[in-house]
Formats: sequence, structure tokens, C-alpha cells
Amino acid sequence: MDIVLSEHGYGESSIPLILVSRSRHTDRVRRLSVDVRLAGGIPEVFTDGRNEHLLSTNAISNAVYALSADHADAETEEFALALCRHFLVSSPSTESVEVTVTATEFAPMGHEENSPRHSFRYIPAPRATSRAVGHRGENPCLWSGMSGLELFKTTGSTFTGFRQDKYLTIQPFADRVFGVELTAEWQYRDAERFDGSSRARAQEAIHEEFAAHISRSSQHTLHRLAEAVIGTCAEVCRVRMAGAHLTRGLVDLSPFHVDNPGIVYTATEHQTSPLAIEVTVGA
Amino acid sequence: MDIVLSEHGYGESSIPLILVSRSRHTDRVRRLSVDVRLAGGIPEVFTDGRNEHLLSTNAISNAVYALSADHADAETEEFALALCRHFLVSSPSTESVEVTVTATEFAPMGHEENSPRHSFRYIPAPRATSRAVGHRGENPCLWSGMSGLELFKTTGSTFTGFRQDKYLTIQPFADRVFGVELTAEWQYRDAERFDGSSRARAQEAIHEEFAAHISRSSQHTLHRLAEAVIGTCAEVCRVRMAGAHLTRGLVDLSPFHVDNPGIVYTATEHQTSPLAIEVTVGA
Amino acid sequence: MDIVLSEHGYGESSIPLILVSRSRHTDRVRRLSVDVRLAGGIPEVFTDGRNEHLLSTNAISNAVYALSADHADAETEEFALALCRHFLVSSPSTESVEVTVTATEFAPMGHEENSPRHSFRYIPAPRATSRAVGHRGENPCLWSGMSGLELFKTTGSTFTGFRQDKYLTIQPFADRVFGVELTAEWQYRDAERFDGSSRARAQEAIHEEFAAHISRSSQHTLHRLAEAVIGTCAEVCRVRMAGAHLTRGLVDLSPFHVDNPGIVYTATEHQTSPLAIEVTVGA
Amino acid sequence: MDIVLSEHGYGESSIPLILVSRSRHTDRVRRLSVDVRLAGGIPEVFTDGRNEHLLSTNAISNAVYALSADHADAETEEFALALCRHFLVSSPSTESVEVTVTATEFAPMGHEENSPRHSFRYIPAPRATSRAVGHRGENPCLWSGMSGLELFKTTGSTFTGFRQDKYLTIQPFADRVFGVELTAEWQYRDAERFDGSSRARAQEAIHEEFAAHISRSSQHTLHRLAEAVIGTCAEVCRVRMAGAHLTRGLVDLSPFHVDNPGIVYTATEHQTSPLAIEVTVGA
Repeated sequence: MDIVLSEHGYGESSIPLILVSRSRHTDRVRRLSVDVRLAGGIPEVFTDGRNEHLLSTNAISNAVYALSADHADAETEEFALALCRHFLVSSPSTESVEVTVTATEFAPMGHEENSPRHSFRYIPAPRATSRAVGHRGENPCLWSGMSGLELFKTTGSTFTGFRQDKYLTIQPFADRVFGVELTAEWQYRDAERFDGSSRARAQEAIHEEFAAHISRSSQHTLHRLAEAVIGTCAEVCRVRMAGAHLTRGLVDLSPFHVDNPGIVYTATEHQTSPLAIEVTVGA
Repeated sequence: MDIVLSEHGYGESSIPLILVSRSRHTDRVRRLSVDVRLAGGIPEVFTDGRNEHLLSTNAISNAVYALSADHADAETEEFALALCRHFLVSSPSTESVEVTVTATEFAPMGHEENSPRHSFRYIPAPRATSRAVGHRGENPCLWSGMSGLELFKTTGSTFTGFRQDKYLTIQPFADRVFGVELTAEWQYRDAERFDGSSRARAQEAIHEEFAAHISRSSQHTLHRLAEAVIGTCAEVCRVRMAGAHLTRGLVDLSPFHVDNPGIVYTATEHQTSPLAIEVTVGA
Repeated sequence: MDIVLSEHGYGESSIPLILVSRSRHTDRVRRLSVDVRLAGGIPEVFTDGRNEHLLSTNAISNAVYALSADHADAETEEFALALCRHFLVSSPSTESVEVTVTATEFAPMGHEENSPRHSFRYIPAPRATSRAVGHRGENPCLWSGMSGLELFKTTGSTFTGFRQDKYLTIQPFADRVFGVELTAEWQYRDAERFDGSSRARAQEAIHEEFAAHISRSSQHTLHRLAEAVIGTCAEVCRVRMAGAHLTRGLVDLSPFHVDNPGIVYTATEHQTSPLAIEVTVGA
Repeated sequence: MDIVLSEHGYGESSIPLILVSRSRHTDRVRRLSVDVRLAGGIPEVFTDGRNEHLLSTNAISNAVYALSADHADAETEEFALALCRHFLVSSPSTESVEVTVTATEFAPMGHEENSPRHSFRYIPAPRATSRAVGHRGENPCLWSGMSGLELFKTTGSTFTGFRQDKYLTIQPFADRVFGVELTAEWQYRDAERFDGSSRARAQEAIHEEFAAHISRSSQHTLHRLAEAVIGTCAEVCRVRMAGAHLTRGLVDLSPFHVDNPGIVYTATEHQTSPLAIEVTVGA
């Protein structure tokens, strides 16, 4: 019997750091978490335990810390790209490198009159993601995104006309509340021409479209939000949206003779309906 | 051998709901989590399995849902007080009742020109807490608070002059970055006269004092923040502050010949130093 | 207005370590998490930022690591006691010290014929807790316990005769399944005479009693388990049991014409009913 | 600009249930968590909000509950296969269906002499996974696996000869302790001929090989464990192993003049090194 190693990869994940930019009037403080993944090219490390082409995870995390010091004033997309290029060089046998930087920000506090502000409070969500994917011999791909974004509508959502099934116990909704937790990612046509202005436009497009459209299902909403990003940002060629519909049902208060005209809803998080789509700009 | 039941209590925790107020131009959406604790008064339930004085947790959580419908436009402090009074009546053998309501808000999105807004994004932190504690035969106590508040200073923090010890490996810091995660709670002198304006003043006092003072230790900072609340809010008689110092050390990049002048810090969360104080207004 | 610091404390929590005893035929491997809490005695650290009596958390965690090396072959109760005594000496202004050691074990793997075994798999639950509480000038108290213990009965549980209430929607159960998650702690009459044999007897008593008794409520079960520990271990003077009833309701499959005679139950964890009792041996 | 929906899918995840088999002398109790994923075939649901081919998640989770009642005595692999086939029928436009069932068991307690046992304690790890993947028009694939398995060696592990790099700060280890957290999955050559005996053999092979081999890296160990499964189970054609190396460094106690000959190790979980391989039996 012949055993074949068909895929292999390794890396270091959740490398944590706080990055302080002190070059401005008021400092900028970000918490970063960096994932590095190296795939392919070193089968003998796995099959024979021969390590001479293995870049150790010690060297990986140290490089993340060392290169971060040069990127305190940069966008995290630029930091992800720099790390991706570094590891393609420092691990020359590796076939592809993927670097993801997840960032959350701290907001300055105190009065901004004359003096700079040095105190901050933490804003845990949404998280800004930046992802650079480099295959040896090709230009790297660059993605920006957001995760941990939770949106809610108190009206402007229907759910009707779905497939009948013997296991169905719900009725159609002509007007329901609607909650969704989202991860959005968009790829740039040209990683070299990233200019840092896209994130704000993409985020605004998602917020605006969520407020404007009438949702016919969480699937429908996901597609509308993806279209909004691609329609707003001409530099974007591909959007991935993933999410979970957050079921919020009206609590039945009739046993207690209490009216519930759209006021009290369940908020259990257990049963989620994960959604994922990929939308591309056709040739 | 005589076995004595010296303390007993039970309750229902983390009862989840979303509360939508539809009485305004733009809706208000809050996520609530309610904890109810009933203590004392029913030893025979525990020792003999006799349940006739036991209010079941089914009735407890249903009452939380039913009463919430009347409090969609109220402050969570008022909801906590109403629940506390309800359970003292509906469980007449119970000695004391404690109700804690934890709330997070959703922020409206979209343009507020002529039309009301019905779309929201979730703000997970900080969480607003409201706590009512009622002992049978006494007026209930009322507390407000915040949890999940993470603060950070890029300067304005020292740590010097501490006790020498053979297990000490750090040097004094004349200027360090400083991170702390806080839970603050303040008690009102008179629960009946709660008017809903205190929370904003207390929160502002904490933010202002954190920015203004020079921290000599996380203990010192905790006390300064408690003093700020009690000094700003004359209606407050007691403040409890609890927190964890978040260790953020400069990453040593000298092995890689990279300078790190206050830029890259560790952000591991594992080792925390929990702190707790209670500050009262003396007679 | 006079502001008074009425309570204060600090410490270091969740100090993580793996402790390997290599003195046996087969090694013993434990994962420990240590919490140290120092309370009282140093108000000026909080109120004035004067640190000369402050034992830093750096010295606290280093002492935990240093003293652990001497306790690789000891019970965690002995380690907790040693740490408690150490901190009463090294922080002479502190009024009381509480040290909690939480331990999980690794089970050896492989064939134990002639050769010692050096490979292990991790057993995450239940966790064994050891707690030493020292007030200056008094003998320390010693507790052992377990946390993360989840028990379940497929029969032998009733819930009837409870208080009627207008918010009640459940019927009495003459025979139900019953789940509970438990934390148990028992205090020894004399910390100096701890001999390491109690834990196994207490744990066995809990398992046996849970299987043997007919539960009339989760409150009733908690008390029966506490009695079982105190009845089995003459060296124990006090037991604290805390827990959460895990609601497991029969899923209604009648809309789908499927019978569910005690087979499929819900397993959501959200709504828990925390319970706590303290049982002491009367004089 | 032409926008194309290039991929789409949805489903329901973490559907929780407790399944009690009452057909044996002593009951069997399992906690299951079921994920269902439907991919492709219904682009108009996303792009146009037309729902007539959409099987709602309400019908999905209800079907999971309803079909579970028939599988209380079956292996979870069989339950996953039945669900996969069900959804291919009940959602006829869907291109592929993936069903994953994650199971944990409860162990019976009490004396098994004459009477059956009805009391159990929960065993949270490792979790047994079963996965059925069905593409319309093809035979479904069946996988079994384990997740949450944490292994540790106190000797028998080296890490030497790895690539030199300017960011490297560690020395080679001729003998180190070694920890790894694993997820293993193996695919059967023929889903129709699954007989329930494979899991025990695969698990034993992993344990035995982990104990027997000298690890040259976590990569090397992962491959050895995959080979062991494929070598032991002739019915297996493919193995996927994923894992995280758990860094356990000797704590330096020399500043305190304490010897640490392989006794006290760090146990922080933050920085993990994810690994993944796929091993197949070659033609």
C-alpha cells in the first residue's frame, strides 16, 4: 500500500500585539492578532522528520513582532502584504503564504482642546481584517474585511413563499424583525494599488444598503450587501460574505394576558443558520 | 452528628431578551440579560424535598418576560426594581431577592432626515448593569454600573517604590503604558428617587479622571475612579470598582536590531491581576 | 464629604503551569491554574499611591512558579497551604491571603508491561480544586473540591407540588430526566491533619448518592450530595455545593407524527438555574 | 459591470440534542450537536429573493430532531448518512449536502450488579465526529473522526536541524516535552459498508503510535499518527489530521536559585501553531 501526503501546511496563529503610533498629535492604539500560514513545499518535514527546510514558528512569530515596529503608522493591509512577502523569502521551499491581520481600535478620551490625548477606551467590534495571499511566482492577492458586525432591523424584512415541507412549523412573515451577524471580505483588483480609502466606503455601503433594502430572506440580504460593496468600490473584484441569521422570535405572552406588539423577542444564540456567498465581477 | 443547612439560595440566570421600544421617532433596541436570585426562607425544599413554597424557575423566567413588556420605555434600573418587588410578593417565604439586568444597546444607522430609522448595529461593550437588592421588610437598594470597560493610557502611568522581594524580577517604571479592564458599580442613597440622569455623569467622570490623573499603580487608579464617581454624583453613597490590570510589556526587539521606542507591546490576556475595592461616603 | 475606603484587595489569577513529577515509575502530569488573593492592610496603596508595602504581582506569580518546583510530588492542597503561608510572610501588612489551585490530570497511555510510560492524554473535567485561606494570626482553613462535574439521570427524578403562580406554564413531572452541573467544596476540621485520602472518598460519595436517591428537585439533590460528603468524611466540617440545573425538555415530535418516548431532549445551555447551599456540622 | 454569484450555501449549525437509548440493560446517553450545510443550486434565492426552492432552516432543524428519534440505537455515522440523504430529497434543487454530527458521551455511575444503572457523568472530550457529504448523483462520502484530543509526552521528542533565520531565538532541543491538540478525520472507502468497528481501532492506533514514536517535530508526529490510522484500518482511504502544537517551555527559576530539572513548564494557550495534513492511499 502506497501512502501519499497529498496536502500539508503549518503556521502560527493569534500572535497578539498592541501597536502604538506616536507620530501624530494624538496617539493611535490598535490591538492586532496575526495569523501566518505556510502551505506546501516541505513534504520531507512531515514524512521523514528532516527539518532543514522548516522555518520554525519561533522565527515566524519573532518576524511578526519585528516587522510590526515598522508598520505602526501603516494600514494593516500593508503590514499583511509585507509579512506575506517576507515569509516567501525566508521560507524559500514553501509554495504559498497567507497572512491575516485582525485589528481592533482604541478610541481617544478626554477633551481635545490644546493638548494631545493619551487615554483611550477599547472598541471590541467590529474587527477589521486584512489578508494577503501569496503563491510563489505570482503577485499576491489582497483582501480587506470586517468581522463581528451584528446588524438588526425592526421592520423592513419579510420571509414568505418558501418551500413547503412536512417538517415545517413556521408561518410566513409579512413583517418581521431581522438580525444577522456578518463577516465581509472584499478582494482588490490590484494589491499594488491599495490606497487605504476603500474600507470606509465599503463599510458605509454595507450600512446604507442594510437600512435601505427590504429583506426577503437572510440569503437575499447577504447578496444585496455584497452587491453594494462591489457597486461602490470600483477597485474591488470579488466579495465574500458569510453570516449567521440570528433568530429573534416574538415571545408569546398571551398565557399571562400581556400584549406583545413587537416589543419582547427571544435572544438565544444557539441555533444559527450560517450563510456564505461569493460574488465576483464577471469578465 | 447534627447537619445544619446554614445558607441556601437559587434562581435563574442569563435570561435573554431583546427589548424594542417603538414609541419614539426612531426605535430603541436593547439586548437584556436578567439574573434573578432568591435567598433564604425555604430550607425544607432543600432538606426534605417539600416544594409547596418553591417558586419554580419556570415561573421566574416567565415573569421576567411578562414584566419586560411594560418596561420597553423604562430605564433598566426601574425594570430591576419592579422585578425585585414582584418576586418578594410572588415568593413570600423568600428572605431576599437580587435582580441584575445587564444591557447592551444597538445604534441606529442610515440618514436621519425626514424618515425614522429602523436599522441598527450592535454595540457589545461596555455593558450597562442595573441591580436591585431587596431584603424582606426593608427598602430595596439600587445600583447602576458598567462592565466590560477596557481603558488604556499611552503615558501618564508610573510604577515605582514597591516592596522588595526575592521573587521580584521587574524594575520600577517611571513611564509605562497602562491597561485595565473595569467593572464599576455605584449605589444610590435612595432607590425611590432614581431619575435616570446618573449613569451618563458617572461614566463621564470615569473617563475624565482616567485621562487626567497620573497613575501610580492599578490600585491607585481604581481608587481615583471610584472617588470621581462619588464626587460627581451626590446621589451616590457607595462605589464598588473591580478590575484586572492588563499587563502590556514592551516586546524586546534588540535581538533583531530593531528599535522599539514605545511601539510594540505584548497583548496576552492570560495573567490578570484582579483588583476590587469598595468606597463609601462616611457618615 | 468624607470618602472612606471600606474594603480593598488585589491579586493574580489564572497563573498557568504544567507540573511534571518524574519521581515515579510512570511520570505524573498535571495542569495547574493558581489564583492568589491578598485582602486588606494596605489602604495607602489605593488612596495615596504609596507603594512601599505593595507586593507586586510580578513577585506573586514568580513565587508561585518557584514554590511549585518543590511540590511536584505533593497534593495540590499542600501546595495551596504552602503558598498561603508564604504570602502572609512576604506581604506582612496584608490581613488575609486566599490561594486556590485548580488541577486537571493527564492519563498515561500505552502498554505498562516492563517499561515506564511517558505519553499521556488530557482529562479536562472535572477539575480538582484546593483552597487555603489564611487570616493573620489564625490557623489557615483548608478546602478541597471539584468543579465542572456534570451529572445526569435518565429516571429517578420528580418535580411536583411546587408553588402555584400566574406565570407558571409547566406541569408537574412524576418522572423526568435530570441534569445538573456541580461545584462542590468541603472544608477540613483541621488543615494540619490533611492526609490526601479525602478526595477519593468525597467524590465516590457524590457519585453513589446521585445514583441512589430519588430527586425531588435540584435543590433537594444538592442537599443530598452535601450530606453524603459530610456523612462519609468525618474529617470534614463544612460543605458548599453550587450548581446549575440543566433544563432538558422532551422535544415535541408530534407535529411530524414521530413518537418520542423519552428519547430526544433539548440540550440548550442558555437558561440555567444557579443553586448554592452551605451545609455545616452543628456543634 | 456584470456581477456574478459564484458560490452560495446556507444551513443550520450546532443543533443541540441529548439522545437517550433505552433499549439496553443500562441506558446510553449522548449529547449531539448537528451541523447541516446545503450548497449550490438556488441562486435566485440570493439574487432575487425568490424563495420557492428554499428549504427553510426551521424545516432543517425540525428534521434533525425528528430523524434523531429513529437513531437512538445507531452509530452517529449512520445518523449523519440518513440526514444527508434526507436533505438531498427534501431540497431537490440543492447541489450538495454536508452533515456533521459531533457526539460526546456520558459514562454510567453506580454499582452494576443486578440492577441497571440510570445515573451518568459527562465526558466532555474528546468529541466523536461523523460526517456525510453527498453530491447529487454520486454516492455519499462518509468520515469519522475525533476532535479535542490533547496529547502530551514527557520525553521522546526532539526538535533539531531546522532552518536558520535571523529571527530565530530558540536553540535545538535534543529532548523536550511535547504537547499537541488534535482533530483527526478518516474517510471510508465505501460508505455503504460502514460497520461501526473502525472508531475504536483508529483511536487505539493514534494512542499507540503517539506513545511509540520519537517525535522530530509536530509536523512529523501528525504524519505518523495519520499513517497509523491508515495502516491499521484497511477500510480507510484518506486521513486528515489538524492540530496545534502546545508550546510548553521550562520556566526559568534560576533567578530564585531554584532548580527546574524538567518539572515546571509554562501552559499558556495563546500562541498556537496550527498544522494540517491530508494523507491518502495512493492508487
